[in-house]
Amino acid sequence: MGKLLNEKGQVYRNEIAWEIFSDSIKKLQPSGIFILTDENINKHCLPYFLKRNNFEIVPQIITIPAGEIHKNINTCLKVWETLSEKGADKNSLIINLGGGVITDLGGFVASTFMRGLPFINIPTSLLAMVDASVGGKNGIDLGHVKNQIGVINLPEMVILDTEFLNTLPAEHLTSGLAEMLKHGIIHSKEYWERVKNIDVSKKLEFEALIWDSIEIKKEIVTKDPLEKNLRKTLNYGHTLGHAIESYFLEHPQRKTLLHGEAVAAGIVLASYISVETYGFTKESLQDVSKTIFKYFPKQSFEKNDIEAIINLLVFDKKNRNGQVLFVLMEDIGHHRTDCIVSNELIYSAFDYYKNF
Amino acid sequence: MGKLLNEKGQVYRNEIAWEIFSDSIKKLQPSGIFILTDENINKHCLPYFLKRNNFEIVPQIITIPAGEIHKNINTCLKVWETLSEKGADKNSLIINLGGGVITDLGGFVASTFMRGLPFINIPTSLLAMVDASVGGKNGIDLGHVKNQIGVINLPEMVILDTEFLNTLPAEHLTSGLAEMLKHGIIHSKEYWERVKNIDVSKKLEFEALIWDSIEIKKEIVTKDPLEKNLRKTLNYGHTLGHAIESYFLEHPQRKTLLHGEAVAAGIVLASYISVETYGFTKESLQDVSKTIFKYFPKQSFEKNDIEAIINLLVFDKKNRNGQVLFVLMEDIGHHRTDCIVSNELIYSAFDYYKNF
Repeated sequence: MGKLLNEKGQVYRNEIAWEIFSDSIKKLQPSGIFILTDENINKHCLPYFLKRNNFEIVPQIITIPAGEIHKNINTCLKVWETLSEKGADKNSLIINLGGGVITDLGGFVASTFMRGLPFINIPTSLLAMVDASVGGKNGIDLGHVKNQIGVINLPEMVILDTEFLNTLPAEHLTSGLAEMLKHGIIHSKEYWERVKNIDVSKKLEFEALIWDSIEIKKEIVTKDPLEKNLRKTLNYGHTLGHAIESYFLEHPQRKTLLHGEAVAAGIVLASYISVETYGFTKESLQDVSKTIFKYFPKQSFEKNDIEAIINLLVFDKKNRNGQVLFVLMEDIGHHRTDCIVSNELIYSAFDYYKNF
Repeated sequence: MGKLLNEKGQVYRNEIAWEIFSDSIKKLQPSGIFILTDENINKHCLPYFLKRNNFEIVPQIITIPAGEIHKNINTCLKVWETLSEKGADKNSLIINLGGGVITDLGGFVASTFMRGLPFINIPTSLLAMVDASVGGKNGIDLGHVKNQIGVINLPEMVILDTEFLNTLPAEHLTSGLAEMLKHGIIHSKEYWERVKNIDVSKKLEFEALIWDSIEIKKEIVTKDPLEKNLRKTLNYGHTLGHAIESYFLEHPQRKTLLHGEAVAAGIVLASYISVETYGFTKESLQDVSKTIFKYFPKQSFEKNDIEAIINLLVFDKKNRNGQVLFVLMEDIGHHRTDCIVSNELIYSAFDYYKNF
């Protein structure tokens, strides 16, 4: 198989991206092309993708059911078996076309099939664009524990086309905003001020914010690819956010939360805890909370919910020696990692959330 | 967690190995130690291992059923779940104590749990010592296709203690010889002459051959870690060997072959094909065949077996565009990679094997 000239993991945008994509496939000369999608993508994004690109060999489509609940080892097993049946070899190329579930699971499947096939990510959701597209993290859930199994491995490239965002239901678009708001809080007041007043109907402004969000994440993962320190800041709001998401996933009577919806709640909670521990100002907390509740509905948490959510914290990947370690903020743009937080304080944070 | 001073993947031997092992654990200061073993290892090797080492924290033992048939995703899932239940975190250390199934599966489990925990391999079989211990390949079988799922990722270190070989049943010791003989054929006449007359009862001589075998493999994988060319030579005898092993695995009425037994047959077949295609001499073929049959019993292959084995070749990881690519030899120490071989010639090779 040929080699790409580009450095792995590069993100390309809109028009130029498709040209580079097309050139790269010609250079790679894969023995087979396999496009991983889900049922929704098949309907809403695949036709546009296929119309935009001419392939010398006919790509084979592998479709998995949509939704976080399918981001597990059983789905991987089915995709591995399908690749095997369809004759994928070490020179085959995988294209992951879809939201975060597709790029996460597809990246893992590609990284492990025959000990690693090349893959290209084409995120179609805002969340996947601003979060999953950068940094090479992939993976699947283990039971209800999020992203417990995976590897870090960069795609050959990432193709970003904001055209896909027009296919998203409104709540999915908002879900991606949570990560952009997080990038604002951990990065700088300047970006926070811009992103908190985001108006998705102003296409050019919105796109500029997306690119900047990606640049912020890229800068962080380049400085600390193995998450020794700085990269942990990307988990701001995620310690409780992931636990909330897991809790809702394992209770079918609750509406499944989108990742961004869970993270949005996690951001408010972590910001409250930051006030109580590291001097994050009450004004900033007010600002963050108001912004979050402008975009995200409030979730209801009863005492027994909170208890169960706290119990789920033990599975957080940042933990050490059984201690849950949070990322907290001293100020917008100034973080603290490896912070120990008492359960009492977590309960108070939920109180604050409820009463805001 | 602390860092090891050593370069990853280093192999240490006997006495000094245990000192380095012990020092390294002190430096690593893992939050938990998890030893992956199987039922046989628990009985024959674990007591010696635990007696040799004092741990500051009590290691937890995770035992899987013994045998290649369990080298699959279900076993991984159980081990991942056990790690999760027992509170493993990113600072936990996995120790894979066992034969090739344990180091292959354990390496994969460790490389993917929380996107990668550090692990140490302690191979207890000759096969795992001379083959699986070097190069960082790990993985599991997909259905009956060998090593179809996995990654390349080096352990923190490899601890080799030939004391473990005393615990091996005779046929398991012989199984490891196949890889050493292969190293002889692909490396040089000098090593081939030494290894073909191996006498496992002469401890020092035997050990010297093991270290040299490891050095040969190490030299190859260092020059070509990603198997672009030279590393493919390590697959000598494995294209048909793996297919034979898979075939026997999926036919429960046939005795399951040990990896080395299947590779031994594969070596004779590949050597015959090398004579017919690239001028490997008949004398060398005679020499290789006599040596193999000195250690390994002849297997019986009927026409329908051979047909099925040829059909399994499509899953070989060296294939490209649906073509099966062999490694063949021009002479001992002189290889050719990416060789296309006709089915007719494969049938003739099985004829030669049968009539030798």
